[in-house]
Amino acid sequence: MANIDVGEDEFKMNVAEVEGNIDYEKAMKEFGIEKIGKELGKLKNLPLMYRRGIVIGHRDFGLIAEAINNKKEFAVLTGVNPSGNLHLGNKLFIDQALFLQQCGAHVYIPISNDETYVFKKTSTLEQATQNAYEKVIPDLIALGFDPQKTHIFISTQTPHLYELAVKLSAKVTFSTIKAIFGFNNETNTGQIFYAVMQSAHILFPQLPQYGGPKPVVVPIGIDQDPYMRLVRDIAEKVGMVKPSSTYHKFMPGLQGGKMSGSKPETCIYLTEDPASARKKIMRAFSGGAATLKEHREKGGNPDIDVACQYLYFMFEESDKKIAEIFQSYRSGTLHSGDVKTMLADKVEKFLTTFQKRREKAGEHIDKFMIE
Amino acid sequence: MANIDVGEDEFKMNVAEVEGNIDYEKAMKEFGIEKIGKELGKLKNLPLMYRRGIVIGHRDFGLIAEAINNKKEFAVLTGVNPSGNLHLGNKLFIDQALFLQQCGAHVYIPISNDETYVFKKTSTLEQATQNAYEKVIPDLIALGFDPQKTHIFISTQTPHLYELAVKLSAKVTFSTIKAIFGFNNETNTGQIFYAVMQSAHILFPQLPQYGGPKPVVVPIGIDQDPYMRLVRDIAEKVGMVKPSSTYHKFMPGLQGGKMSGSKPETCIYLTEDPASARKKIMRAFSGGAATLKEHREKGGNPDIDVACQYLYFMFEESDKKIAEIFQSYRSGTLHSGDVKTMLADKVEKFLTTFQKRREKAGEHIDKFMIE
Repeated sequence: MANIDVGEDEFKMNVAEVEGNIDYEKAMKEFGIEKIGKELGKLKNLPLMYRRGIVIGHRDFGLIAEAINNKKEFAVLTGVNPSGNLHLGNKLFIDQALFLQQCGAHVYIPISNDETYVFKKTSTLEQATQNAYEKVIPDLIALGFDPQKTHIFISTQTPHLYELAVKLSAKVTFSTIKAIFGFNNETNTGQIFYAVMQSAHILFPQLPQYGGPKPVVVPIGIDQDPYMRLVRDIAEKVGMVKPSSTYHKFMPGLQGGKMSGSKPETCIYLTEDPASARKKIMRAFSGGAATLKEHREKGGNPDIDVACQYLYFMFEESDKKIAEIFQSYRSGTLHSGDVKTMLADKVEKFLTTFQKRREKAGEHIDKFMIE
Repeated sequence: MANIDVGEDEFKMNVAEVEGNIDYEKAMKEFGIEKIGKELGKLKNLPLMYRRGIVIGHRDFGLIAEAINNKKEFAVLTGVNPSGNLHLGNKLFIDQALFLQQCGAHVYIPISNDETYVFKKTSTLEQATQNAYEKVIPDLIALGFDPQKTHIFISTQTPHLYELAVKLSAKVTFSTIKAIFGFNNETNTGQIFYAVMQSAHILFPQLPQYGGPKPVVVPIGIDQDPYMRLVRDIAEKVGMVKPSSTYHKFMPGLQGGKMSGSKPETCIYLTEDPASARKKIMRAFSGGAATLKEHREKGGNPDIDVACQYLYFMFEESDKKIAEIFQSYRSGTLHSGDVKTMLADKVEKFLTTFQKRREKAGEHIDKFMIE
């Protein structure tokens, strides 16, 4: 879905397993997702995820580029499932939203406490709501959103949201939802309705109360495309603009597999003690050879080395430097330990700065919330 | 459901057809509904529907009688589906709520504009919401509720309601809903979720914001018992008091079959021109013999005569007089035309008084609404 999944990942990718090597080209072709490229042409100060092919595909991003270039109103939407604190994988979504906000977008962030509860990631709805206010929202604020252009809302507490979901629900049968989400008769009715509520989150910025129909872009992973297809179908039926989407590659988990917020060994939380983060990084999956000697002779594989990948995805801003790092790692002159230390230093610096900002974030929540 | 259906009736009775003769005793036995009787013992000024066996059964009405007798907090809940103006069949529910309000109950009235729309009784949700404010709510107010003890709320516009429905939805699978409502895979997701929302309406008075767990009674027709069984199961799972219910017999439609708000020939609307109501009554289904001569000889059947029934259900307050009317009709001394005129006079008087009160009802809406 459009949400950042900060807990257990409930959905398997339809086209390919998320773990291991994913044939993004094949998946995009199968889903009818276009490669992103020329749409980015006129945009300035592109962040690394657009420069480096991390964001690889899109639907209707042309609408967004056009809105940016002509200074027209548009929005970016990125949901958060409040099952716990945000981690670096979530930050990949947020960084895209922050960039688009700099390009003029209003950012809408639904916090799906309903999703958290009906998918049993918390034992009570109250816990999910508490996570929203105490964990997720302060994390979001500390990441640097502009309060003038940011609209955070809690799924169960936002006027007009259930009303919008009701409108959409009349257009969607159980068959449709069942096929997309793999539901069956034993699925609880909360999960069934949440499928529609999720579309309501995405279409929410197009309500008359928020200025009516407009281009909206949702940055997602390619496994979430079925939900985009659903919401795009629905949008058409209710006279709204079909939302655009961009698709990014998966940032690997620390152990090389999938990253999951409910598995601390796979991710680094934004609120994690920097020393703990350093330890996790030093133990991360390495693409280097078995021995230092062998690494010097044969080189390593930066494409599967987690430290190399984290630098590539997020922490090495310079394209020149990242190319050098990859080349040296591949040739064997740069070792796994070196790259891990390089990353750990950068992550430590980021976490320290972030956590300092976060201390006071809680005081500013009201400035960011709808209602 | 708990709602007054003011439009097309979407559900068939499971046990027996609603039209024609219903074996109430058999249905009650099958559902495990108790006969009402001793629970009413201490209550004063019982209205005719309790005195005359129109309200025939109950679940846990003892809790309500106890609350009345000990002046403890309790509530009555009666929902309205805003597909059009209220009619006399709806008034039967309202009259029970009004009586219970006199006994001390707070009355909660959810207006299910979501239901109206997802079951396609209006073409837009906006129309259903407009019906709520322009038709149903003024009708309700003019019927005489006490603003201090009445809480009317619109299903899509009430804080905490979707939140409560989410909590309940995690406890209810599609299988459960499917069996009760006869849904299938082509059912829209709005109808599926509304099944849960309806339970949320009934449990709403037990939210902490409204004083927490308490006895709540829902006056319904016997065909709606499956929804009571559902909400009673759910209540237990979420630590609320299992709602009580009372069951009344069906007031027949003007033509002897089922009454339906979407079939003007079967009902009299509260806002109907008194002359039109009179005409409908004079044309109503009669239990008399084919000719006046035959009626005098053989008598008529007041049990199927619509005018006799309407006097019995609602318009002849005196038990002595209604007994006399039935006896005279049965013996043939009282004719169908006489009874119809008698009823028409009473209905005309009621409508005139009601409609005068209704003129200013719109000005007082705020006093009755939640939020």
